[in-house]
Amino acid sequence: MKLLDTLNWRYATKKMDPSRAVPQAQVDAIVEAARLAPTSSGLQPFEVIVVTSPEVRARIREIAWNQAQVTEGSHLLVFAAWDDYTTERINHMFDYTNEVRGFRNEGWENYRQMLLKNYPPRGAEVNFQHAARQTYIALGVAMLAAAEQGVDSTPMEGFDPAKLDEILGLRARGLRSVTVLPLGYRQEEGDWLVNLPKVRRPLEQFVSEVK
Amino acid sequence: MKLLDTLNWRYATKKMDPSRAVPQAQVDAIVEAARLAPTSSGLQPFEVIVVTSPEVRARIREIAWNQAQVTEGSHLLVFAAWDDYTTERINHMFDYTNEVRGFRNEGWENYRQMLLKNYPPRGAEVNFQHAARQTYIALGVAMLAAAEQGVDSTPMEGFDPAKLDEILGLRARGLRSVTVLPLGYRQEEGDWLVNLPKVRRPLEQFVSEVK
Repeated sequence: MKLLDTLNWRYATKKMDPSRAVPQAQVDAIVEAARLAPTSSGLQPFEVIVVTSPEVRARIREIAWNQAQVTEGSHLLVFAAWDDYTTERINHMFDYTNEVRGFRNEGWENYRQMLLKNYPPRGAEVNFQHAARQTYIALGVAMLAAAEQGVDSTPMEGFDPAKLDEILGLRARGLRSVTVLPLGYRQEEGDWLVNLPKVRRPLEQFVSEVK
Repeated sequence: MKLLDTLNWRYATKKMDPSRAVPQAQVDAIVEAARLAPTSSGLQPFEVIVVTSPEVRARIREIAWNQAQVTEGSHLLVFAAWDDYTTERINHMFDYTNEVRGFRNEGWENYRQMLLKNYPPRGAEVNFQHAARQTYIALGVAMLAAAEQGVDSTPMEGFDPAKLDEILGLRARGLRSVTVLPLGYRQEEGDWLVNLPKVRRPLEQFVSEVK
């Protein structure tokens, strides 16, 4: 099973080689994997912003605990969730689905009505939190897509989301930043983690069965 | 890139063949992939419960909108997050890491102190929500691990988590259910979704660049 090898190969890279850039085709494949990631009700309640600008990444690094990978990688993926599930957003996705499939399905339309009835009234914060969870699926998929291609990445929650939203103008687009993922190549010299064993709880502390 | 094929192959299977069981070796590989999934600070703040008992799955189906995959698949994975980040849980993971690596690292110990200072006082609900997000990474990884092996799965949030916690006795173990993932094999007859195209927002509505 290749996926297990990929999972074992990757690690949260601490030091990236600033002289090497990830080729665009590989970045495209990583973004495509995130786009294909499953989400609740297929709503895909987030966007990915690919930041290459050195100036913008330098500003982001300042509000991200000065983590060097933000600028030493070549690309920074920002996963930004919808700030709310609005009627418009829900309808857009259902209308688009009907358009792609070329027909309307009664069960699907009933499901649309159920979401329209339940999601918008829950309030923006509940909806954002739900959308934010979905971004973690895509974040994981993107990390695997990177690793499969020999590209390193470092998932990060350690930044000031309000400030990142401001730097990228996300709030005006109805988005709120959740995680960022620098892409690049490990520079083994200077990476304290690269040669340490991956640590995971033993299986017996992780899984149990109900037979 | 194989991962893109895997992502395109999988779909939220609506009808599973109740006569086919996923072999144990494949279930083990799926759980192993979830165990290897990255999590914030490497804390792995969740467990996976593998439910095969037909009786227990019948009870779960009742509190899961009667979704048939819960009982028509052969295995039900339950992703249950820690109800809190406690001092004990944080210390356990850091102590275990030191044990595996065979040494204590000053930077790592400082990081432990930072988490101990910040996480427990935030309160159980904030910590549970953070832990719950991490389970989505493992959920996504598990779906890919299944698909890579030709095993179908259906990610579900549609159930009553308090009731599932009760059925499985999760609260007493400091866990709260977040998602469930039936594993099985698609039964094309009777699955309204299997032959419909996968729908994702076009790339230009999903990704943007800051150059």
